[in-house]
Amino acid sequence: MQPRILDVRTRILKDNDTHARALRADFNAAGVTVISLVSSPGSGKTQLLQQVLTTLGLSYRVAALVGDLATDNDRDRLAESGAPVRQIITGTVCHLEADMIRTALDGWKLNELDFLFIENVGNLVCPSSYDLGEHLRLVLLSTTEGEDKPLKYPTIFNTADVAVITKIDIAQAVGFNRDTAVASIYRVRPGMTIIDTSARAPGGLDALLLFLKTVRAGDAR
Amino acid sequence: MQPRILDVRTRILKDNDTHARALRADFNAAGVTVISLVSSPGSGKTQLLQQVLTTLGLSYRVAALVGDLATDNDRDRLAESGAPVRQIITGTVCHLEADMIRTALDGWKLNELDFLFIENVGNLVCPSSYDLGEHLRLVLLSTTEGEDKPLKYPTIFNTADVAVITKIDIAQAVGFNRDTAVASIYRVRPGMTIIDTSARAPGGLDALLLFLKTVRAGDAR
Repeated sequence: MQPRILDVRTRILKDNDTHARALRADFNAAGVTVISLVSSPGSGKTQLLQQVLTTLGLSYRVAALVGDLATDNDRDRLAESGAPVRQIITGTVCHLEADMIRTALDGWKLNELDFLFIENVGNLVCPSSYDLGEHLRLVLLSTTEGEDKPLKYPTIFNTADVAVITKIDIAQAVGFNRDTAVASIYRVRPGMTIIDTSARAPGGLDALLLFLKTVRAGDAR
Repeated sequence: MQPRILDVRTRILKDNDTHARALRADFNAAGVTVISLVSSPGSGKTQLLQQVLTTLGLSYRVAALVGDLATDNDRDRLAESGAPVRQIITGTVCHLEADMIRTALDGWKLNELDFLFIENVGNLVCPSSYDLGEHLRLVLLSTTEGEDKPLKYPTIFNTADVAVITKIDIAQAVGFNRDTAVASIYRVRPGMTIIDTSARAPGGLDALLLFLKTVRAGDAR
């Protein structure tokens, strides 16, 4: 890589870190718990988040931002939960950046929220380099993707806090070996918290919801 | 975006195009048909390619390059076909570039190959901007990913030549609506060639193999 390019990349990252630090300070001051979701396209981020918003929305004040290169589809899907949702359209940019979050939040009163969720662009590479000021980053791994994804995309697992296995209901149909997947995750990130989910099975999100409530209880103390 | 960053990006793309044009000229001179595969992580590129190499390898001289951020896993999986395979490890780079292809081909005699396959890094965004000198680019869309992926990642569908639907055997289990997916593809790229595949069902790659042989017959005329 030529030095000039490296220079520019480093500067973009530093600018982003400055924005992200300011965002995190604002989130803390407002008392809102901010959770981001990253994964491959099609791992089930939107379907999972829609149900999380619907269920948590019964007891908490929740909202969401969702990033895509194009279309408002995911905003519409998430808004079915009844929560306020805004779409961030990135055009050709393969990830969200902190200043996009800042712009998208314009006019929202953060101190009137308990949870803010941020769904990143579907991508296992680029989002890993950009802090969004979130408190917790969930990386989703679908049972359909193969057990070695953590080994092939180590940085995204290293920059996330929790691994969420999605579509566990079809694990058998797609030949998913959970032990192998867990071993892959641990090779990259020993002891990482792993939560199994299914957005289609009854109670399939219970473990995740309990985890989020526990995080919130800790934040709100 | 600041002008300076745009400058640098434009220059990288131009450099890549120059490399890609030179590669394509070499591929043409050698008479090798070069096919690249792009998709999300976990869409089934490697499993599909392993079977394509195994089957085509009975009648054609085939080889493959495979890109990943980390690990040699895919080289090992593809090499089970008996074909020569080389791994390109990109580190933190979210796509393959033409000069990586050039380097990886060092020492291979292109005129002794009928087909060269290039499996890109699993990513629906970044690879779309980089010509690799290939003759044909296949974009894979798995039935587990949701029918609206073409609408959300239009550029990758616009820069590919053929859409390959993978894991068609579990379409029903995952609630995949093929008509909706085809409509999404056509909205982005009217009339795009679409080929259904299953790497697990007997004969599940027949349509794709026939297509590739037809392309080769045309190239070799």
